[in-house]
Amino acid sequence: MILQRNDIEQLDQRYRTAFVNSLAGFRQAVLVGTKSIEGHSNLAIFNSLIHLGANPALLGLINRPDSVQRDTLQNIKDTNEYTLNYVSSKHYQKAHQTSARYEKGISEFEKVGLSEEYHHSFTAPFIAEAIVKIAMKLEEIIPIPINGTILIIGSIQQVSIDDVLVKEDGFVDLSSASVLVSQGLDAYFSTSMVGRMAYAKPD
Amino acid sequence: MILQRNDIEQLDQRYRTAFVNSLAGFRQAVLVGTKSIEGHSNLAIFNSLIHLGANPALLGLINRPDSVQRDTLQNIKDTNEYTLNYVSSKHYQKAHQTSARYEKGISEFEKVGLSEEYHHSFTAPFIAEAIVKIAMKLEEIIPIPINGTILIIGSIQQVSIDDVLVKEDGFVDLSSASVLVSQGLDAYFSTSMVGRMAYAKPD
Repeated sequence: MILQRNDIEQLDQRYRTAFVNSLAGFRQAVLVGTKSIEGHSNLAIFNSLIHLGANPALLGLINRPDSVQRDTLQNIKDTNEYTLNYVSSKHYQKAHQTSARYEKGISEFEKVGLSEEYHHSFTAPFIAEAIVKIAMKLEEIIPIPINGTILIIGSIQQVSIDDVLVKEDGFVDLSSASVLVSQGLDAYFSTSMVGRMAYAKPD
Repeated sequence: MILQRNDIEQLDQRYRTAFVNSLAGFRQAVLVGTKSIEGHSNLAIFNSLIHLGANPALLGLINRPDSVQRDTLQNIKDTNEYTLNYVSSKHYQKAHQTSARYEKGISEFEKVGLSEEYHHSFTAPFIAEAIVKIAMKLEEIIPIPINGTILIIGSIQQVSIDDVLVKEDGFVDLSSASVLVSQGLDAYFSTSMVGRMAYAKPD
């Protein structure tokens, strides 16, 4: 099928949301852990993790201010701290359940059945079961005027990961640990490597 | 292992680049097709596709001005048009080879062995072999001052995809077509679905 811009605009709203979100392809499923200034733990799934640079090591997240991610954004603004956690594909149901609109003050950790873990000098909670745990410091919030979304930019403060997953050249072998991948609003995947390539040169 | 910010900064540069890029996780491999004002076709792999919104349907790309993506950025600025193409995992070597620094004026389509395809009223080239072909119009370029990268925002003008991949609710089943996923600078994957979930509600 070929859909023109017009056709997409005229789709039923739920159909269009599912279509465009899933059309944007596969992405890393990341659970963002934060603490409110009142001390409540919060955990929310995002599927918009962006690599911005390696030196300094910067990652971005896209946030929709009107979504369940609202509490996460507020906590990041209030505390300047957050954690990024990747879980195994076997935890996909728990990961998805963090997208429910729990009331502020309710901990998604408790509700979905994942354990909080704390690291020295960092107040935001990690997921104990996570395969990758990254401590982040807020660096910048960039508004995207065209549709009111926000780009949250943070710097990596700490990375916790099993030694066996980090290869000799620095490559992090997430696939062998069956790290969870998402697509669209509700689909979850594991991966199989088809290959690694050498640095590409003109032939 | 636990790496602190300091440890990451002191890593060997190539190791750090591989580590932080791959740490950012899995993402959609997307081949961006453009045409220069001189009429030369260009094709370059990006691994930074971002879903920004469904209505209007907006997608973002992160661009490093000092990279091989430089020609793509210039062509997008000059013509306001580009295409996004997802290929099968069996084409991973061709997809990767588009990251080589070919001279301006050399067509990566020819060099890597993928075919150009043109759609009515759109001058940027698509990949004939692609599973998903999206025509984009440039909407906005947002500079990210912290490290000199750029967020390219475009609106979806047209989507071409086999009917059987679009499910009843609008979900695009990329996994069943073995659409290529990337991680870091050089690793490629296919996916297996672990599940789709209903809209999550508080219990």
